[in-house]
Amino acid sequence: MALRTSLLLLCLLLGAALPGRADDGYRLWLKYNLIADAAQRKDYQKAAQFVAVSGQSATLKVAAEELQTGLQGLLGQSVPMLSDAKGKKGGIILQVDAAAADKAGLGPDGYRIYSDKQNLIISGRRDVAVLYGAFALLRQLTTRRTLNNLNISSAPKIQHRLLNHWDNPNGTVERGYAGSSIWKWYELPETIDPRYRDYARANASIGINGTVINNVNASARYLTAEYLQKVAALAGVLRPYGIRVYLSVFWAAPKVIGGLPTSDPLDPRVKQWWTSKTDEVYKAIPDFGGFLVKANSEGEPGPQDYGRTHADGANMLAAALGNHDGLVMWRAFVYKADPKGDRFKAASEEFLPLDGKFAPKVLVQVKNGPIDFQAREPFHPLFGAMPRTPLVLEVQLTQEYLGFATHAVYLAPLIKEVLDADTYAKGQGSTVARVIDGSVDKHSVSGMAGVANIGSDRNWTGHLIGQANWYAYGRLAWDYALTSKAIAEEWTRQTLTTEPQAVQTVAGLMQQTRSIYVRYTTPLGLHHIMGESIHYGPQPWLERSARPDWTSIYYHRADSVGLGFDRTARGSNALALYKPEVQKMWGNAQTIAPDYLLWFHHVPWQQRLSTGRTLWDELCQRYYTGADSVLWLQRQWAAVQPQVDPVLHADVAARLLTQHKEALWWRDACVLYFQTYSRRPIPAPFAPPQRTLADVKRLVDLYQLR
Amino acid sequence: MALRTSLLLLCLLLGAALPGRADDGYRLWLKYNLIADAAQRKDYQKAAQFVAVSGQSATLKVAAEELQTGLQGLLGQSVPMLSDAKGKKGGIILQVDAAAADKAGLGPDGYRIYSDKQNLIISGRRDVAVLYGAFALLRQLTTRRTLNNLNISSAPKIQHRLLNHWDNPNGTVERGYAGSSIWKWYELPETIDPRYRDYARANASIGINGTVINNVNASARYLTAEYLQKVAALAGVLRPYGIRVYLSVFWAAPKVIGGLPTSDPLDPRVKQWWTSKTDEVYKAIPDFGGFLVKANSEGEPGPQDYGRTHADGANMLAAALGNHDGLVMWRAFVYKADPKGDRFKAASEEFLPLDGKFAPKVLVQVKNGPIDFQAREPFHPLFGAMPRTPLVLEVQLTQEYLGFATHAVYLAPLIKEVLDADTYAKGQGSTVARVIDGSVDKHSVSGMAGVANIGSDRNWTGHLIGQANWYAYGRLAWDYALTSKAIAEEWTRQTLTTEPQAVQTVAGLMQQTRSIYVRYTTPLGLHHIMGESIHYGPQPWLERSARPDWTSIYYHRADSVGLGFDRTARGSNALALYKPEVQKMWGNAQTIAPDYLLWFHHVPWQQRLSTGRTLWDELCQRYYTGADSVLWLQRQWAAVQPQVDPVLHADVAARLLTQHKEALWWRDACVLYFQTYSRRPIPAPFAPPQRTLADVKRLVDLYQLR
Repeated sequence: MALRTSLLLLCLLLGAALPGRADDGYRLWLKYNLIADAAQRKDYQKAAQFVAVSGQSATLKVAAEELQTGLQGLLGQSVPMLSDAKGKKGGIILQVDAAAADKAGLGPDGYRIYSDKQNLIISGRRDVAVLYGAFALLRQLTTRRTLNNLNISSAPKIQHRLLNHWDNPNGTVERGYAGSSIWKWYELPETIDPRYRDYARANASIGINGTVINNVNASARYLTAEYLQKVAALAGVLRPYGIRVYLSVFWAAPKVIGGLPTSDPLDPRVKQWWTSKTDEVYKAIPDFGGFLVKANSEGEPGPQDYGRTHADGANMLAAALGNHDGLVMWRAFVYKADPKGDRFKAASEEFLPLDGKFAPKVLVQVKNGPIDFQAREPFHPLFGAMPRTPLVLEVQLTQEYLGFATHAVYLAPLIKEVLDADTYAKGQGSTVARVIDGSVDKHSVSGMAGVANIGSDRNWTGHLIGQANWYAYGRLAWDYALTSKAIAEEWTRQTLTTEPQAVQTVAGLMQQTRSIYVRYTTPLGLHHIMGESIHYGPQPWLERSARPDWTSIYYHRADSVGLGFDRTARGSNALALYKPEVQKMWGNAQTIAPDYLLWFHHVPWQQRLSTGRTLWDELCQRYYTGADSVLWLQRQWAAVQPQVDPVLHADVAARLLTQHKEALWWRDACVLYFQTYSRRPIPAPFAPPQRTLADVKRLVDLYQLR
Repeated sequence: MALRTSLLLLCLLLGAALPGRADDGYRLWLKYNLIADAAQRKDYQKAAQFVAVSGQSATLKVAAEELQTGLQGLLGQSVPMLSDAKGKKGGIILQVDAAAADKAGLGPDGYRIYSDKQNLIISGRRDVAVLYGAFALLRQLTTRRTLNNLNISSAPKIQHRLLNHWDNPNGTVERGYAGSSIWKWYELPETIDPRYRDYARANASIGINGTVINNVNASARYLTAEYLQKVAALAGVLRPYGIRVYLSVFWAAPKVIGGLPTSDPLDPRVKQWWTSKTDEVYKAIPDFGGFLVKANSEGEPGPQDYGRTHADGANMLAAALGNHDGLVMWRAFVYKADPKGDRFKAASEEFLPLDGKFAPKVLVQVKNGPIDFQAREPFHPLFGAMPRTPLVLEVQLTQEYLGFATHAVYLAPLIKEVLDADTYAKGQGSTVARVIDGSVDKHSVSGMAGVANIGSDRNWTGHLIGQANWYAYGRLAWDYALTSKAIAEEWTRQTLTTEPQAVQTVAGLMQQTRSIYVRYTTPLGLHHIMGESIHYGPQPWLERSARPDWTSIYYHRADSVGLGFDRTARGSNALALYKPEVQKMWGNAQTIAPDYLLWFHHVPWQQRLSTGRTLWDELCQRYYTGADSVLWLQRQWAAVQPQVDPVLHADVAARLLTQHKEALWWRDACVLYFQTYSRRPIPAPFAPPQRTLADVKRLVDLYQLR
């Protein structure tokens, strides 16, 4: 054994020396590297001498295989697979046990891991639940937790835990910063990229159970017979991992591929077309998850083109689903161009009147905030305001507005901020989390959607910290009660190092990244002042665009008096969309948390804030300390260099250099631009920027060149 | 030693079992796997006991490192690096020896590898030549050739052996089918993807010494100070490997980033701007290679916007280069929309009058054929027709018109067909190869350009056979006398297997792929009948497009009488652009090789060809046998399954299934469409397509959906 182990160690070392063996991040948080501590290894080995599984379910098979692969890597010993553990001890038994699951209230996806003195038993209501349990057990080892007297039960709080891919048929990814799409449409269905299976493994390991594979700005071609074969091939790879495939649909599909003269949802031919098309989809993909729809939004066609409502459209699709086990997720991300209006209110104005008008299979998918995935937004006023409609929370994992792939921004704190926000819909404690899990309004269906940051880059997400955002999203969709810190530690242990001090350092810096990013880009509630179209870098001076609500001045409202968008009764009164308790919290410029100040108030430059500084001084304070904090991130990251794989460490270190460079763009662009209104000096101890506003403009504008 | 070796073997085997160790194609033809034959290994080991290199040149250092890595992998033993081989035997010595190189006429890049009884010596005029020699020596081992009494001398026939990347700043690749761009512009200059170095190694191993890193439809941003830092960082990685960086330039750059009111090449401010910009480029990149320009072509701006000629524009840039060691490559790919004209003649009409008007530093870059990278084209009539202008041959490695990443098409036979074509410019033997190497017209500068098929896909080129096209291009640019068969064997031995029978089978099928592709897509000289815009699949029925010369009917000229474009004196008379010997070869419909027939003649459906069949019957014969031949490719590939890595083999096998499916689209689309003109039955023994023309149209049209 000792010889065998040392041999394996040697091989792994040699292996690491071979080209391509350095850690390139491809394995994500499923690394299964040999545990260095021999004592700990021995401890685990005692409890993992075999894996026993009965039955032929494809899902139980991949669960057992994952345990074998994981244990082989972690423990350096091969683990036999048995069909029966009778009379054996010291092994792992996979067990589907509906009765026990129901007794323990685990639901369809929940698992229980416990020791019956003889063996470790992973059990659940169905095979997918056992698969989740298998990954949970592996997580015990990869995070170095004990297996002794284990008794863990866990069930997801959200039913439908989905990724949304904004991937196009030509292989590009809208708002993708990690290479091209991982879906190879020209090569499917014949060529099955091995990557599809690793994608499924990663998602199953964190409980994600559905994926919308194409952009919400959808192409009709996915609904053609030719493409359904391709989608079905993908679905076949994902199925054993409990992941169902969903499609974004192009509203005008009945016209462009159906040959109909209309896409009016009330036209019988259109209804008929969708019904037979849906039957065709389920014939190809029996466990198809359903449709996601972006309609009458940003130029996309929709039912309003025919004088119908969003409900008319959604309910027609729900009817087309008939008895198939599928859902319609209808996006509330709609806003009409109106220079006098307030985009903040647009979705509410269109959807509040529709509450109660949606068919049972319809869920309305709402972004976390009222504008568009800004670095910090107040929770969307629709949460808690549509009691008769199940709402899906949509968060963005790809960093469209949060620094692309060159800024380290751990998003769990942002997601938690939304989940924990109290809507007061049914009194205190009516958090967004409890609205979407259905408990506030007693809905039996629930869902969460994360816009994926996944691409063809070898490490999947471009920035290594982006992997943590994928991971944290899945973990929070499973259990929103987890803290962002705990998730950061868990991810770090599996991905980077198990050395306790280093884990604390990495998780600690991750926890700060999002608030640091907010400080050097959009402090005090500023929003939507980024570069036009590509949304890269600062462009607070953007005055004209294809739409007024795509400019920056529409949002920051800077003038000689002050800064910020007045959304009180004196202004757009968007605040009235919230419950009185929330209005009270945000309605008073004196008492509102500074982080939200300029979302709701136009504040004089010289007004003194609760921080003791004037608005202008506080604004500068945050831009300067925010940018400086990136240097702190660099120092923290440097401190863990000995504990982290050199290739991974060097990559993140380099990106932190870029991040600081770009943080200084933001700082200088914004303080110099807003200074043209405030006419105040940069307060001590901060030195005025070395460059002029024109310098920064030139720099940022070049990224707007074709 | 035996133990050490067996241990290493074991480790490699174990290594192969670990996730990510299966051959994913990333290592290209530089695999360096352990040589299985112990006797052969011992034989090589005797001659490779050390690597000796003197001096500190970065290029010699990477040459020695490549030898160490390669020998370690191939021989399973570490090879020490010495600074001096005095008194030692049985090693490899890297030697820069200008005198010897001049004596042997090796030129700046040529190398000599010989045994001086004591050691193997790799020598050349400069360190880059020695690097080429080092890769050549490794090729001896990877192809299992002997090292005994070695005496090889090799010097390139073409000076500037370039890749052209049509990569955009946003990471997309125009006409790229292997993922996104490998250049990560948002992450540069701080983050250096390890892939850049592997890209450089692969290119240096086949003698490529320059790369144009951005699309000819160029963005101006590469010329900004911000981007020049990024380009300089890339150049720094490529420099030790003898690869110079070039840039495609956007003609209107002086306006969009220079702030000038004009880009007129004769305007002194414009001249001044380019001169100081060029100085700035060389300050950042001292070994910068020069500029590639697509001007007044397909909507790109150019000197004609100001009433100036291509020569005015090119010469202005040449003047801006001044004393810097750089070149201007000016593309001749120009054609004005003219429904009555013949695009075949467009480039000649614009460039023939300019012969002799270009400054010394200017080369005119000409595509292999007069239209646009079709599966088979007659050589471009400009070759041999501009004696006073050095011409660069541009070939396309990315398979824009040759099946994207799902058709196995080995391009060396296509490239050789052009190189070997005789222009008769200075009498018989004035081949295109001798025109571009400068020997026909006594030019001292020469170049070749391959439009890269490289992307972020793990295996670089999407289709594994695409790697062979990258490889073959480099080898032919170095020595166009190599046969495509020899290159196919060489590539196969390094990439797939050294088993002699399997090598013959793979190289044999590769040799057939291109003519098979021609048969099932555009036989008998048909051209430009592919899908609109994306150029995927057949669309012979395309009658209207943004330009008449972007339709299919413009080229095939099908009517009730016959098929083909009459380019004789009775037609467009494009034939007159060639020398009399060539006109004689192609001018007579009775004697022209059937492969070129419809390029030059409109032929009656019932005319009997030299093959003994009527045009219609021969057309069907080729479409049917071409599509059937893909099944033959599948059988040939299946035969080598035991000798090829299972992952690589399965991937190609799957793509061959897709290829056959698409070959049948082509066959059915074209015979059914042309049948509407020929009104003749599908000749025996072939069965008429099972589907209608409408069926195929529907199928192909869906790929035109947004």
